[in-house]
Amino acid sequence: MKPDDKHPSDFPAGPAGRELIARAAALAKHSDSPDHYTRTWLTPAHRAAGKQVAAWMHEAGLSVRTDGAGSIIGRYEGATPGAKAIVTGSHFDSVRNGGKYDGVLGILVPVACVAELHRRDERLPFAVEVVAFADEEGARFQTSFLASRAFLGQFDEALRERSDAEGVGFDDAMRAAGLDPEDIAEDPRDRATIAAYVEIHIEQGPVLLDAGLPLGVVTAIAGGTRQRVQVTGVAGHAGTVPMAMRHDALAAAAEMVAAVETRAKKVPGLVGTVGLLEVKDGTGNVIPGEVEFTVDIRSVDDAVREAAERDVFAAFDEIAKRRGVTVAARKSHAVRATACDERIQELLAESVAAVGAAVHRLPSGAGHDAMVLAEAATVGMLFVRCGAGGVSHNPAETVDEADAGLAAAALFEFLRRFQ
Amino acid sequence: MKPDDKHPSDFPAGPAGRELIARAAALAKHSDSPDHYTRTWLTPAHRAAGKQVAAWMHEAGLSVRTDGAGSIIGRYEGATPGAKAIVTGSHFDSVRNGGKYDGVLGILVPVACVAELHRRDERLPFAVEVVAFADEEGARFQTSFLASRAFLGQFDEALRERSDAEGVGFDDAMRAAGLDPEDIAEDPRDRATIAAYVEIHIEQGPVLLDAGLPLGVVTAIAGGTRQRVQVTGVAGHAGTVPMAMRHDALAAAAEMVAAVETRAKKVPGLVGTVGLLEVKDGTGNVIPGEVEFTVDIRSVDDAVREAAERDVFAAFDEIAKRRGVTVAARKSHAVRATACDERIQELLAESVAAVGAAVHRLPSGAGHDAMVLAEAATVGMLFVRCGAGGVSHNPAETVDEADAGLAAAALFEFLRRFQ
Repeated sequence: MKPDDKHPSDFPAGPAGRELIARAAALAKHSDSPDHYTRTWLTPAHRAAGKQVAAWMHEAGLSVRTDGAGSIIGRYEGATPGAKAIVTGSHFDSVRNGGKYDGVLGILVPVACVAELHRRDERLPFAVEVVAFADEEGARFQTSFLASRAFLGQFDEALRERSDAEGVGFDDAMRAAGLDPEDIAEDPRDRATIAAYVEIHIEQGPVLLDAGLPLGVVTAIAGGTRQRVQVTGVAGHAGTVPMAMRHDALAAAAEMVAAVETRAKKVPGLVGTVGLLEVKDGTGNVIPGEVEFTVDIRSVDDAVREAAERDVFAAFDEIAKRRGVTVAARKSHAVRATACDERIQELLAESVAAVGAAVHRLPSGAGHDAMVLAEAATVGMLFVRCGAGGVSHNPAETVDEADAGLAAAALFEFLRRFQ
Repeated sequence: MKPDDKHPSDFPAGPAGRELIARAAALAKHSDSPDHYTRTWLTPAHRAAGKQVAAWMHEAGLSVRTDGAGSIIGRYEGATPGAKAIVTGSHFDSVRNGGKYDGVLGILVPVACVAELHRRDERLPFAVEVVAFADEEGARFQTSFLASRAFLGQFDEALRERSDAEGVGFDDAMRAAGLDPEDIAEDPRDRATIAAYVEIHIEQGPVLLDAGLPLGVVTAIAGGTRQRVQVTGVAGHAGTVPMAMRHDALAAAAEMVAAVETRAKKVPGLVGTVGLLEVKDGTGNVIPGEVEFTVDIRSVDDAVREAAERDVFAAFDEIAKRRGVTVAARKSHAVRATACDERIQELLAESVAAVGAAVHRLPSGAGHDAMVLAEAATVGMLFVRCGAGGVSHNPAETVDEADAGLAAAALFEFLRRFQ
């Protein structure tokens, strides 16, 4: 789809972009550490950030409440009070030493849209709800999608046994924040009241940057698995064991790393990554006896991913057998792919065109709260170009002011088009 | 050479073997740690071990002194007092969590030989000196061949600035052991008084074990280099960066590990090892941006080693260029190969045959004190089969009682043959 120059958006993208970047910077000051931006669930910095978000929501004309997990929910009623809502939002926690747009942009952008509706005193045929999910990254208690799951009334009680790195228990952390662990998922959102869920997010990759485009319509969110692989060979003296008599666990693992890369390259959109590799008791003059590494494989097509996993692990077995080492794997994480709704994709594409940008569709390789919301509603996502080579989960993460403004304009157009 | 059944040795190999194994076990009780065998330079355990060695030397008829580095030197005069000496010995320090024969066997075996000469009241045309070098592994102050270098009057004064892991300074450690750091290399051994240097050592590899042979005559000690290699790519999100847009430092490093192995396999006796590999800030869902690893390349032929190094680093450059990553290397260690003296090899071979064992010649991939002594005298080495798959620098390191006895018998034959 080409830019729609005949029906230009009248959303004030320029001022909105400036405000969005300023707000992201202001919010990043609420950090658990003075040295870098880290904001984990229910710390003092996290609660202060939540209060700031609530204040901005209130100022934008949203009525604000906090749910059992500490998420901040703002509602802007439609023309008919009590109408179904378009739910939109993202998370305001971060990874350790993260970037200030990841999650936050998906809260600030819809608040800016509602502020504009409010300024115009415009009501839509449905309500708009902006949800600032309190915990998605889960860095404090090693959780995953804690707040969006709780929003839907899903909560794993076993998490309450966990403690954070400082030894603070889950329940104690909740109580210290004025929340009752018994109530965390007590008020599940009635799915019938959700018209759709739409999430704005920084791309966290280089695709839009490389294509020279500010916005991208997400087609699907990749499913993925993470495995921990252990290779056991025979340690030995680096000087005294002839090459032909070795069972080098690292040489075997290196061949496995190559096998992951080679297989992933065969299918566009499939990705395979060995992110962590450790040589146990490794030292310069010892042949490695044991190596552990992770394998992360993702695709928007579950069948494509599963075929790749089978091939990769068959290759691992062949390599291990040929080299006289053993290989064992343990799955630590698995999630199926989520398709974005066709109608929402189409409306997002029209909205992107309406703000003068070329439409580009792309999958999301990263997981998002939209994956959880997909259990309750049709979902869609709009990506915003990630600067600095596409890095994310990193202090270098950036978004252009102009791109942020365009994202707000596009979401504004979407909300007005949605029926 | 075949076993020499017509001129059998009359050395009491059986009882000697039992005593050698018992003494190695007794000496291993002098450890810096109650949990495993670790004995580092001038600790209380190390000094106690030195005292025990001195007592055994004295009992064997050697006159004993301690040099400026804490090495224990026992001398058994020849027929003519003040004659040149065959110097033989090894080290009595260990790596952390090491094996109880590494070094120690090369001290205990010649003490057993001299004890037998003493029992027979037999004097040779030359003196026999047994040197228990105080520090070869250098685990405490990260040194290398400290004691054998000091024995020859070579000492790097810069080492005196070092401290151990507990913060104890080099000079303070010496003074606490009753040694004067000013005197460490004050009494250099007059090279003209050394007839030859011969070292008995556990093989520390699987070659003799694999060949089913108790003893091996060393042809040369490999030279080697150690390099630290840094690969810098671009970190990224494991889900969001397409395979074709990656500059994965670990995928590049894995290909480099394979290049080291492939090149080393091309020449028998050449070995190449990546013993340590670290992914900086590695985590399962991040494409590695930086990897460091070591490359250890050894050969008894310096030209063969240097050609392999050139090829390996050319391959690294090609891999880096093709993948859009950078590679940098820093040499941390380099030593040239040491040839063992032909005449000593021949006499050792005759001696091995005389004790009824088949003669096998092999290079030493590991470094030994003999490399340092080669600067002052012709040298030779006799390897003893390493059990347990050939592991060394490891608590599982073992030597058979019978093999230890044969080693003593062979050295005894060598001493009587040497002229």
